[in-house]
Amino acid sequence: MVFDHNFNLDDGSINWGPTESHREYHRKMFQGFLAQTPQKLRQACCDDEGRLVHILQAEHFDLPFLEHICEVTTAARRSYKFASAKMHEMLARKKVLHLFAQPSSRTFESFTVASSNLGMTSRSLRDLRTSSSAKGESDRDALRTHSSYFDAIVFRSPCDYFDMFALWVMSTSNRPIPIINGGSGKAKHPTQAILDYYTIRASLERQIDGKSFAFVGDCLRGRTVHSLAKVLALHKDIEMYFVAPEEYQIDPQTEAYLKKKGVKVNKVTGGLEGIPEIITGAVYMTRIQDEHDGDGEQKRYNPRFIFTEKMLDQLQDPAVLMHPLPKREEIYPAIDYRSDRKIMIWREMRNGMWTRTALFAHIFGFDQEVLRSYHEASKAYAPTPL
Amino acid sequence: MVFDHNFNLDDGSINWGPTESHREYHRKMFQGFLAQTPQKLRQACCDDEGRLVHILQAEHFDLPFLEHICEVTTAARRSYKFASAKMHEMLARKKVLHLFAQPSSRTFESFTVASSNLGMTSRSLRDLRTSSSAKGESDRDALRTHSSYFDAIVFRSPCDYFDMFALWVMSTSNRPIPIINGGSGKAKHPTQAILDYYTIRASLERQIDGKSFAFVGDCLRGRTVHSLAKVLALHKDIEMYFVAPEEYQIDPQTEAYLKKKGVKVNKVTGGLEGIPEIITGAVYMTRIQDEHDGDGEQKRYNPRFIFTEKMLDQLQDPAVLMHPLPKREEIYPAIDYRSDRKIMIWREMRNGMWTRTALFAHIFGFDQEVLRSYHEASKAYAPTPL
Amino acid sequence: MVFDHNFNLDDGSINWGPTESHREYHRKMFQGFLAQTPQKLRQACCDDEGRLVHILQAEHFDLPFLEHICEVTTAARRSYKFASAKMHEMLARKKVLHLFAQPSSRTFESFTVASSNLGMTSRSLRDLRTSSSAKGESDRDALRTHSSYFDAIVFRSPCDYFDMFALWVMSTSNRPIPIINGGSGKAKHPTQAILDYYTIRASLERQIDGKSFAFVGDCLRGRTVHSLAKVLALHKDIEMYFVAPEEYQIDPQTEAYLKKKGVKVNKVTGGLEGIPEIITGAVYMTRIQDEHDGDGEQKRYNPRFIFTEKMLDQLQDPAVLMHPLPKREEIYPAIDYRSDRKIMIWREMRNGMWTRTALFAHIFGFDQEVLRSYHEASKAYAPTPL
Repeated sequence: MVFDHNFNLDDGSINWGPTESHREYHRKMFQGFLAQTPQKLRQACCDDEGRLVHILQAEHFDLPFLEHICEVTTAARRSYKFASAKMHEMLARKKVLHLFAQPSSRTFESFTVASSNLGMTSRSLRDLRTSSSAKGESDRDALRTHSSYFDAIVFRSPCDYFDMFALWVMSTSNRPIPIINGGSGKAKHPTQAILDYYTIRASLERQIDGKSFAFVGDCLRGRTVHSLAKVLALHKDIEMYFVAPEEYQIDPQTEAYLKKKGVKVNKVTGGLEGIPEIITGAVYMTRIQDEHDGDGEQKRYNPRFIFTEKMLDQLQDPAVLMHPLPKREEIYPAIDYRSDRKIMIWREMRNGMWTRTALFAHIFGFDQEVLRSYHEASKAYAPTPL
Repeated sequence: MVFDHNFNLDDGSINWGPTESHREYHRKMFQGFLAQTPQKLRQACCDDEGRLVHILQAEHFDLPFLEHICEVTTAARRSYKFASAKMHEMLARKKVLHLFAQPSSRTFESFTVASSNLGMTSRSLRDLRTSSSAKGESDRDALRTHSSYFDAIVFRSPCDYFDMFALWVMSTSNRPIPIINGGSGKAKHPTQAILDYYTIRASLERQIDGKSFAFVGDCLRGRTVHSLAKVLALHKDIEMYFVAPEEYQIDPQTEAYLKKKGVKVNKVTGGLEGIPEIITGAVYMTRIQDEHDGDGEQKRYNPRFIFTEKMLDQLQDPAVLMHPLPKREEIYPAIDYRSDRKIMIWREMRNGMWTRTALFAHIFGFDQEVLRSYHEASKAYAPTPL
Repeated sequence: MVFDHNFNLDDGSINWGPTESHREYHRKMFQGFLAQTPQKLRQACCDDEGRLVHILQAEHFDLPFLEHICEVTTAARRSYKFASAKMHEMLARKKVLHLFAQPSSRTFESFTVASSNLGMTSRSLRDLRTSSSAKGESDRDALRTHSSYFDAIVFRSPCDYFDMFALWVMSTSNRPIPIINGGSGKAKHPTQAILDYYTIRASLERQIDGKSFAFVGDCLRGRTVHSLAKVLALHKDIEMYFVAPEEYQIDPQTEAYLKKKGVKVNKVTGGLEGIPEIITGAVYMTRIQDEHDGDGEQKRYNPRFIFTEKMLDQLQDPAVLMHPLPKREEIYPAIDYRSDRKIMIWREMRNGMWTRTALFAHIFGFDQEVLRSYHEASKAYAPTPL
């Protein structure tokens, strides 16, 4: 596990309190919490029975956990068609707060729709500080307030340590609730990793060991590449191609992490040509995240990294084309109008709704009930394959 | 049917894509779609069984459709009192997105309340481009994304061709969902036409043929006058009075359309005096839509077009007073405190909630279930008349 | 009852209509309504059977009403654990509008969560004037519009007479719905008074007569101090300490009101030292509301009014520490990490959700059903004490 806890707690991303002595007091308590070992911190994400209930980082996942969430996802997805009334009642008394400090279409929308799949009540909020911080309330009190009324919180935050902050606030509350990271800081997007993993696992019919994957576009920034690569690295004999110009290549830390896990890493800076035909797992396209670039100018996308119709034809079964979306010019427009089972882009997106449904069922301990309700229903109906 | 498809697709109301070649590609595909005959396009709004499932334009309605929606409306409205639990469960697993790019009180609120009448989950969004368009996503992808998570979309848009755009995106998706136009461009407001029609039909006890109607105020702009007039024109021997100063008179195209449908059209520019006493259907008041005028100045309303208490007394049974709201000075304030069955203004507004409830039931194929549940319940209870 | 109806109706807080003659007409009607006796106005808040259904002012409450709401609160809170499915269905067809013109975290959130506890559909709106007022609609029409679609409205408003305005609009509507005041003007916050009262009643095991209470911090401004003090004054032999610097002391009108009710009033300007040990009811801390001060500068909080760990230890059973939140520097930070049954701050906040749940049940006439469902369930289960 890789943890970097040298956070700058004074960067203004957290309001620690109304006076310097208050701020110092609470920051010191938080630092004491962070000083625990990674193992202890992962343990703090689990309930008494060792179930992971705070979904904060892809590094916390192992294959049994992923396998379990994927099975619940399939059960939820298929049950919904013929046993939806039951599923819709399952978490009817639970309330979830979607606290999204950064804009998000897909992640936000799929989380809210996932909540309603299980009958949960949702509320969404753009900022911890919408109202009471004008009155001087600390973010710690604000988060604790929300956690008093709701049964789970999903958050998105630009703050690199918001996941740990939330975990800490829960650890000092007498009514802790599960927290889910919907994207935080520069590198964490654990639930996107799960949905991508689910899509790959289904496309490859669970045969992920030994497969090769190409990550194309912005391998440097973008939480999805980092989170997904780390999760795939849990498998054996994985080969990865990072296909990006030098300036968008995978960072050395992540490269080292993957190699340590046994991944064969190839860095391809010349273009996408010749890559699709040798990929046995998935070509994972991403857009250049130049909204992070200060100047607001959008550079012309290098055409050698565009996925073309020809490449789609070259892609060998069972490999698929993926994209976390939003997409830009990196995929040729005609592919939008092609009907081809290898294009998993929209299916991938919709899978996000079902993996998040499964995560909600899991954190509230209703995962077994989803599985049971699916298996019972399967006896009567012949479910459609994925 | 009147269709004008000479839209200026470059007016900036749709984001066609990230680069000029992408934009050109998608615009060309859309133009190909629009080049179909009006009949083909109406057909594209229907499901395999010929049911209208995309509710986009008043021109798509015929009397059997209107009759059907009105019956389902009455059934829904009356059932709700004594069979609400059943109705509330009917569409419990359906999710609807309310995508309102323009402000709206009544239309927005009645659509959201209508969704909840049937147990649907609602989400509302001000703009397609809230988040991902900053990342360069096209409106086509954005709409397709929403349509992946939801089961229906209700939209309001200033764009004259947004209805056709949405229909096109659905036609190229492998998961199309019903689309409802909650007001678009300058002239389309099909669901308002339905609620006004329902109010008139109920007030006149279904005897609409041969009746006369006065449209007062802003006959030039305002989607409601245009949509309602076109719908009433489906009936026989209709006479219409457009009571407005010259500058707000009905436009020649709509006048020609109505005349072609057999409507006797009268243009009255001198004032409302003498009109209410000769109307046998409804006096439909509207406000001058001067928020469209550039200068921000509100002109003094011409007092000769104010509906007075005296006129209310002159209105002959069964004719009624209507107003799509919001109202301003065109109705005398004392009428607000009068209790008179001829004042249908607030009832009309509330009918909007029920007609939209019926539309949701219809597009999801639950219309027969609403009718059945009402008829079953009617055997046990004596329902209150409208 | 203390009513001051010398409101300045021209202060711009209400949009009375589009023209001066309209505005004059409606204001005159409203003034006629206000000219009624306080008894008549309270009666206008009750239904035909004398039940208080518009929850507008703490002055409208009497001990039987408070006692009843507290019992329903306890029943709702306890039932939810083992009979939640039933409770969640109770008001499933009701829709409530949360109309919050001022920011609010706790009040807003607990009201929305309370609605969903009973299965109600919620919509929230920041302003009456979000959309249609740009088109010239009066606030009277806007409120009447909302009341046509919803079954109850909860509002927060900076306007001192918004509660009476809303009551008046309902009184002239043929579809009046219950209205709840979630905080209005400078002094009214009736539902906060109920939740504080509930917390005190539970902490003191219903023995409130003869107890002493300290209000600390901002006794001048702040709706919670005023509303709670008035409600506690309904009990016998109450002693109150207003612990605040001269400039934040309780105002003469409220002091006179309390004395007239038989309360023994002490004004303490020197600091909190020595107070906690003599309090037999509750120490009610509040923050200095200096966001009302024009200059935007936050003064240093006077350390003699800080509640310390030592004071917590001095507090004698059964007295408790309360705070309506948000808090600032008036409570020492270490208390945040103390686990002590005397700290009722977070419990108090969560009680707000349950008292508001009870209020909803009450205004819709489902209070007896909540009590019944609790008593039935109690036979089977041994409920946990508060």
